Amino acid sequence: MSMASDASSIVVDWGTTSLRAALVTDAGDVLDRIETQQGISTLKQGEHEDVLVRALRPWFATHGALPVVALGMITSRNGWIEVDYVPCPAGPAELGAGTVSRVLPNGSKLVFLPGLTDPAGRPFPDVMRGEETQVVGYGLDRDMTVVLPGTHSKWARVRNGRIDRFQTFVTGEVFALLMNHSFIARGATQPPVEDAAAFRRGLGEAEGTSAMLSLLFSARTGVLAKQLSADEVRSYVSGLIIGQEFRQAREEGWFMPGDDIAIVGNDGLNALYGVAASVFELKAPEGPGNEAIRGALAVLQAAAA
Amino acid sequence: MSMASDASSIVVDWGTTSLRAALVTDAGDVLDRIETQQGISTLKQGEHEDVLVRALRPWFATHGALPVVALGMITSRNGWIEVDYVPCPAGPAELGAGTVSRVLPNGSKLVFLPGLTDPAGRPFPDVMRGEETQVVGYGLDRDMTVVLPGTHSKWARVRNGRIDRFQTFVTGEVFALLMNHSFIARGATQPPVEDAAAFRRGLGEAEGTSAMLSLLFSARTGVLAKQLSADEVRSYVSGLIIGQEFRQAREEGWFMPGDDIAIVGNDGLNALYGVAASVFELKAPEGPGNEAIRGALAVLQAAAA
Repeated sequence: MSMASDASSIVVDWGTTSLRAALVTDAGDVLDRIETQQGISTLKQGEHEDVLVRALRPWFATHGALPVVALGMITSRNGWIEVDYVPCPAGPAELGAGTVSRVLPNGSKLVFLPGLTDPAGRPFPDVMRGEETQVVGYGLDRDMTVVLPGTHSKWARVRNGRIDRFQTFVTGEVFALLMNHSFIARGATQPPVEDAAAFRRGLGEAEGTSAMLSLLFSARTGVLAKQLSADEVRSYVSGLIIGQEFRQAREEGWFMPGDDIAIVGNDGLNALYGVAASVFELKAPEGPGNEAIRGALAVLQAAAA
Repeated sequence: MSMASDASSIVVDWGTTSLRAALVTDAGDVLDRIETQQGISTLKQGEHEDVLVRALRPWFATHGALPVVALGMITSRNGWIEVDYVPCPAGPAELGAGTVSRVLPNGSKLVFLPGLTDPAGRPFPDVMRGEETQVVGYGLDRDMTVVLPGTHSKWARVRNGRIDRFQTFVTGEVFALLMNHSFIARGATQPPVEDAAAFRRGLGEAEGTSAMLSLLFSARTGVLAKQLSADEVRSYVSGLIIGQEFRQAREEGWFMPGDDIAIVGNDGLNALYGVAASVFELKAPEGPGNEAIRGALAVLQAAAA
């Protein structure tokens, strides 16, 4: 007889540089984890199945065949199987219908999750691959905006139980370019120093102007004017860029002051985005946590139904 | 007796990687040029005078002592003599009063030009070093906006015969970061291809949105949607970034549709900026050319007066 704590499935987040698997219960509780460095960039076509089966062998040995959900870059053009993007609006039913399945040698069903595209994106349809699972895991019961911070941040709108539309902002990538390769890096302390006050100062400046290309130069003029120290530059620039993401999202209609907004993700940026949300007069209630696994299970269940 | 074609002074543009000198007449016509790789990054304190005298020796031998004007990074903290920034509003008289002079061993007067600062810059005073000379050389007789394209583009306002204010946009630097180090480079043809239609397409997209962080992602989504080819990516991104500079400058009040605007510079970007100006409904009349030398002579004359 099955218990609530029994292993019921395996969720595999298989990206460019690593394979991370979680053995989970029906409720999404994690019983065990495996991580290897066998990211898709290290593998050739034809090797994926062997790598996956070998990684999961201990769990299969103990629990027998189990459904396996795979997401991440493994479903992209450079992965194992390219799974088409499902168009917005989409919830678990539409995402589930977009999955691609096969059967592993031990009889386990392997389900690849699709990505999501927004055909209304301008100037071209927008895309995500993985974040949609986190939005589903956060919950689709309430109409609201969900922000997923990252290299390519996503702003998604939940409406009527589905992801209605979304928009990408390349915030993390621009920040990394500026800090690693630009004139701004010349003014910043190495190794990096985090400074909460400088971050807030950057947010405040970003809130007040649409001239982002000009604002970035303030990381240099502030140092020249001795109003920014080398220790403050990094967090100040982080505030400028994240603040610009919020300002631009506001102008694109993603929120109004006073709104609730969900901040979901695991890139270590949620706390910074929470500060940004407060500067833009937003409330950011805590999510349920563990969104990727919850979402993967919801889509898996919908795919099986 | 002096003729109009007689050598009257020497203008030295001494930057990080090169020393470029021009032997000029009173009217700013260039009689001869010298260029060496002895930029300030190759020199230690105490070496500058010897290097300069040796470079100019042939002209001194022929023409005797001549006034020498030096500008560029040679007047910065990492140069020979740091010359303070002169505050806006400033014309030849104020810039001339901000020069620093010394006498070379052969009796030639050496005049270092100052940079310019805008104390009204937000959030910190803005700075330029060299571009102000080009604005003076373009001419200050008409109230108008002057754009100096570059790694750090400058938008300057001429009013009542002086440079009234200015603002920096880090357009060229952001473009280089994106093309050399970002996800966008992965989609672009190497070696670079120039595509006028793709450039205009980027300008058009940039004109229509303030969401720059989102717009940049279209360089990827356009390729995914097969609406942008690898050959088009570079010019498309160039259009996005330069178009954002114009859009942001418009929002900052630098121009209104229908205005005349001057595009001055020698970074090879003037033609692209001319196309951008037309997309933003601006007229960009031709300047007199040779602005840096004209401007240096105007400030030199004011300094001597």
